[in-house]
Amino acid sequence: MTTHLPSWNDTPTKANILAFVRDVTDPNGSRFVPVAERIAVFDNDGTLWCERPIYAQFAFAFDLLAEKARQDPDLQHQQPYRAALAGDMEWLHGYLSNSTLPAFIDMVLKATAGATQSEYELRATAWLKETSHPHFGVPYTRLVYRPMVELLAYLQQHAFQLFICSGGGMDFVRLFSEEIYNIPRQNVIGSNMVLTWEERETGPQLVRQPGLVEPFNDGPGKPVNIQLHVGRPPILTGGNSNGDLQMMEFAAANGAPHLNLLLRHDDADREYTYDRSAERIQQIAAARQWTQISMKRDFKRVFADDIDRG
Amino acid sequence: MTTHLPSWNDTPTKANILAFVRDVTDPNGSRFVPVAERIAVFDNDGTLWCERPIYAQFAFAFDLLAEKARQDPDLQHQQPYRAALAGDMEWLHGYLSNSTLPAFIDMVLKATAGATQSEYELRATAWLKETSHPHFGVPYTRLVYRPMVELLAYLQQHAFQLFICSGGGMDFVRLFSEEIYNIPRQNVIGSNMVLTWEERETGPQLVRQPGLVEPFNDGPGKPVNIQLHVGRPPILTGGNSNGDLQMMEFAAANGAPHLNLLLRHDDADREYTYDRSAERIQQIAAARQWTQISMKRDFKRVFADDIDRG
Repeated sequence: MTTHLPSWNDTPTKANILAFVRDVTDPNGSRFVPVAERIAVFDNDGTLWCERPIYAQFAFAFDLLAEKARQDPDLQHQQPYRAALAGDMEWLHGYLSNSTLPAFIDMVLKATAGATQSEYELRATAWLKETSHPHFGVPYTRLVYRPMVELLAYLQQHAFQLFICSGGGMDFVRLFSEEIYNIPRQNVIGSNMVLTWEERETGPQLVRQPGLVEPFNDGPGKPVNIQLHVGRPPILTGGNSNGDLQMMEFAAANGAPHLNLLLRHDDADREYTYDRSAERIQQIAAARQWTQISMKRDFKRVFADDIDRG
Repeated sequence: MTTHLPSWNDTPTKANILAFVRDVTDPNGSRFVPVAERIAVFDNDGTLWCERPIYAQFAFAFDLLAEKARQDPDLQHQQPYRAALAGDMEWLHGYLSNSTLPAFIDMVLKATAGATQSEYELRATAWLKETSHPHFGVPYTRLVYRPMVELLAYLQQHAFQLFICSGGGMDFVRLFSEEIYNIPRQNVIGSNMVLTWEERETGPQLVRQPGLVEPFNDGPGKPVNIQLHVGRPPILTGGNSNGDLQMMEFAAANGAPHLNLLLRHDDADREYTYDRSAERIQQIAAARQWTQISMKRDFKRVFADDIDRG
C-alpha cells in the first residue's frame, strides 16, 4: 500500500497515523497545523523501547546498590541489596509496587547524590555501553521498537518537533536520545534530582542532591512539565500506561486536531504480554476512540532483525 | 571591514565575536565545536531589550495591581496600589530593592493565581499589544537592541542553538520570543509559577498557583535551569548583571572554548546609563578578560531607526 513506515503492517492503525499527518500538514486543509505547533511527545519506557523485566534505569540503579553492598558487608544480607548482588531482577520486579517505589527511588537517589553531573554522566554512559539486557542479551539501547523509531523519523520529515516525556530520569535518557532516536538532549523531559551549583576544588560545578524536583514526571506531572519545557500542548502523543493519561488529555484539551497513540504489549513471542499499570488508560482510550497500537497486529517487526530472530 | 553584524561598530568587541564564531565552526581548527554543542544562552532584560525604567513584566504586574485596586477601594490608599493606579513607575523603580522584591513578587504572583494558563496568555498578549513604554512611546516588544538581534541571527546562520535564560517569567517571555527574536517557545528558560493540572468545567486545564518553582532563575539558578532545559553547558552567553555570573561561569567551567559577552549600559543619549546590580560581574569580567560590550562604543544603532531618531 505505501512505502512509509515499512516496519508497520498495513492495518487501520497505520492508516490513522498516515491520515493524521497528511491532514495537519496540508496547508489547504481544514485541519492544518503550523510548524511551530507540530509538537509530538512520546513516553520512553514501554513506548519507544522495552521496559521489561525492569526499567533500564532501575537495572542501572540495581548495579549501583550492588556496588554499595560490596563496599559495606552489613548491607549484604538486607534487601534490596542481597537481590542486587545476585542480579535478581525478577525479585525486584515482584518487589516494586506503588507502596515500595518511593523508598526504592529514595535509595537510588542517595546512590548518586554528591556526585557532580559530569561524574554521573560518565558513569551512566559506561554502564549503558557495557551492560546487556537479561533476556535479549544486547545493550538496552538496541531494544528500541523499530516501528516507533520509523514513526519518529517520519514525523521529523513532516516538520514535527519531537520530545520525549519519560517518568524516568531526564539526564539518563538524554545520554542516548540523540544516538538512538535522533532527539536532541534539550528535547528530553523527565524526572529530576535536585541540582545545585557548588564550588568544588576545580571550580563551580553542578552537584546532584538526594531529592526529586516536583512534580515527578508521571501522570498529572507530565502536562505540567510539557508546559515547562515546550510552552504549548502536543498535537500527537505516544504512551503505554496510566501515567500517560494526562499527557494525552493535554493534547485533547483544546479541541484542536490531535492524535493519541496507546501502545499495547500483547506479543509474548516477540516481546512481552502485560496490561499491568495500563488497564485504566486502555478503557479510557477505547471510550474516547484514541488509536491503540497492538504490537502483535500492527508491528511487522519489533526490534532489529538479529534480535527479532532471537 | 565586514558585512556581518551591520549595526555594530568595527571595534575589538565585534572582532572578538566574529573570531570566536569562525574558530568554533571551522572543522579543521583546534577549537571546533560540533553543532549539537553550539549552545548560546542570553539573558533577556537589559541584554536583548530595554529593562528601564522597570522590567516590562513589572509594568504588566503594575497594571494588574491597578486593576485590583479599582475593584477594591480599600487598596487605593495603600502602596504599591496607589502608585500603580497613578502609573508611577519611577516610584516603583525607587521602591524595589533586594529587601522589598520578594513581597512585590508575591503580590504579583497572587494577581494571576487561579487563572488557567490560556487565560493568562491571552491577557498578557493583549497587554503587550496595547501598552507603550513610558519614555520611548512604542510597545515594549519594539525595544529590542538591534545589534543583539543581528547577533542572534548570525549565530543561527552558524548552526548555534539559541536559548533565552531570563530572570523574568518564562511564560511571559515566550509570548514574544518567536516574533521578536526568532527563538521558539521551547528555547525560553525563565522563572515560573507553580502549575497544576486541574479539572475545570470545560475539562482538565493547567492552572496557575501562587508559588514559585525552585530555583528562581537568577544567579546560581541559571546554570541549574540551563542543565534542566538544555542538558549541556553553553559555549556562548550574553548578560548584563550580577544575576548572569553563574551562567557565565557554567560556560567557562570545563575549559572548552567559550565566549561570555557582558553588555554595559553606558549610553544615556540613546538608552540609559547605569551600573546598578552589575558592579560585581563587571569586575569579574574584567579580571577574567570576558568580552564587555559598551553600548556607546560598540552599537552603531541601538533600536530601530525611528526609535533611535527619537
